[in-house]
Amino acid sequence: MKLVRFGPAGAEKPGIIDKDGAIRDLSGIVPDIAGEALTVAGLDKIRAVDPASLPLAPAGARLGPCVGGVRHFVAVGLNYVDHAHETGLPIPEEPILFNKAPNCIVGPNDDVVLPKTHQKVDWEVEIAFVIGDRAENVAKDGALSHVAGVCICNDVSERHFQVERGGQWMKGKGCPTFGPLGPWLVTLDEIPDLQNLGMWLDVNGKRKQTGSTSTMIFDIQHLVSYISDFVTLDPGDVVTTGTPPGVGMGMKPPQYLKAGDVVSLGIDLLGEQRQTVVPYGG
Amino acid sequence: MKLVRFGPAGAEKPGIIDKDGAIRDLSGIVPDIAGEALTVAGLDKIRAVDPASLPLAPAGARLGPCVGGVRHFVAVGLNYVDHAHETGLPIPEEPILFNKAPNCIVGPNDDVVLPKTHQKVDWEVEIAFVIGDRAENVAKDGALSHVAGVCICNDVSERHFQVERGGQWMKGKGCPTFGPLGPWLVTLDEIPDLQNLGMWLDVNGKRKQTGSTSTMIFDIQHLVSYISDFVTLDPGDVVTTGTPPGVGMGMKPPQYLKAGDVVSLGIDLLGEQRQTVVPYGG
Repeated sequence: MKLVRFGPAGAEKPGIIDKDGAIRDLSGIVPDIAGEALTVAGLDKIRAVDPASLPLAPAGARLGPCVGGVRHFVAVGLNYVDHAHETGLPIPEEPILFNKAPNCIVGPNDDVVLPKTHQKVDWEVEIAFVIGDRAENVAKDGALSHVAGVCICNDVSERHFQVERGGQWMKGKGCPTFGPLGPWLVTLDEIPDLQNLGMWLDVNGKRKQTGSTSTMIFDIQHLVSYISDFVTLDPGDVVTTGTPPGVGMGMKPPQYLKAGDVVSLGIDLLGEQRQTVVPYGG
Repeated sequence: MKLVRFGPAGAEKPGIIDKDGAIRDLSGIVPDIAGEALTVAGLDKIRAVDPASLPLAPAGARLGPCVGGVRHFVAVGLNYVDHAHETGLPIPEEPILFNKAPNCIVGPNDDVVLPKTHQKVDWEVEIAFVIGDRAENVAKDGALSHVAGVCICNDVSERHFQVERGGQWMKGKGCPTFGPLGPWLVTLDEIPDLQNLGMWLDVNGKRKQTGSTSTMIFDIQHLVSYISDFVTLDPGDVVTTGTPPGVGMGMKPPQYLKAGDVVSLGIDLLGEQRQTVVPYGG
């Protein structure tokens, strides 16, 4: 299934993409694409419904983030062999984890707002996974049964805040609008090989990132298990899993986003996002 | 006001401490001590009610965490001059920020569970503040108007996970039960001087930490303003602000918690907490 949330920001309704690509309104079936609706039991309830029997969403409805009510938004750093090489940093021996603020999450095509004191705003195409059934100290084998689905995340990052403002990365990762998620939350039964999906990102139509989930250092199954040894992952928690090469910080000289830039990005089977970069308070 | 949440874990009701120290049930006034109830308007609604007119909570009710539905749980590192000296690390030039998982929050007297693969579980008495009205790029002057109140937090930490498992502190900070909050959320009008509160922590009745909010490097007003430049702080978000000297990691030789230990801690005007340390799965 491809699950979505549509409507005005903060008042999104749950939806599902039908076989013609139209959005059907799921609000008679589940309250939101969030929390308990993402467990195995919750998804089964949605799966039992024929999308054709549901009302169509209004034409041209805005897409919100494909998961709502996120409480824990975890991110993995330096998780692609080729991106680690690009940064000049050693291949991590264990996954590097940090956090993005849950309220930085926006829709896949919403504007990205430059922070008031920004200097170095960068892009990162990533595949994120969303937790279904609670995961606590789960083994690698079977760990994917705790994943409701996957989606695109642009892990927007302010490098000056992240690395030049004193310890720990969260300062540059959770600024408002720094977490576009979507367009769709795609359930795993739709994806033949999670670790062989092409990914790309353009700025103003010029290709910047090209990669594949095949070069991830720690695959999604590994990450679910690993993270669940440190924190309990609850239904609706989101983990974005790192970016392939081609970020602005890695260019010579570095390139950063400015107002008016358009960022578009996509991952095989997961759709595309497109954000316009706008000034603070603009 | 002293606000509390009482009842079984996951089903707490909102409450307020009356002039005799008894808990009165606020559930007819606000749905929870969370989110919108913590804004200036929400607190005014509670303030307008005479606690004596409210039903008494059942005698002996468990205290839950004093704030519910937390989405963003931020923590400040090395924020006491005397603790920074103890660790041998330099005084930070800017606040060090990291995250605790929101689902690690528990009641003030709930058990602390040792993680399955724990090695070095440590204590940290801290004063935490809870956001009332949204704070985004707010100035230092007036920043406290965005704070609903303050409470005790034991920033329980697994030092092996935090510093020896590859980059970024969150691995050792968000394990289940690592965030006891309470007993009370105390509104700022009850606290004559936020930056002159004594604080202490005992393990098995032996004093380990003694400190005062007067030795904080970045005071609470500063922290609200500073953090709001990086992330938007929403109603009900929690920021725990660092610990004074006397953590187990700083002892020679280091001391860590084991099953059966009892940790008690307190801060002037904010009450006391008491946790029993229990084994994983026990």
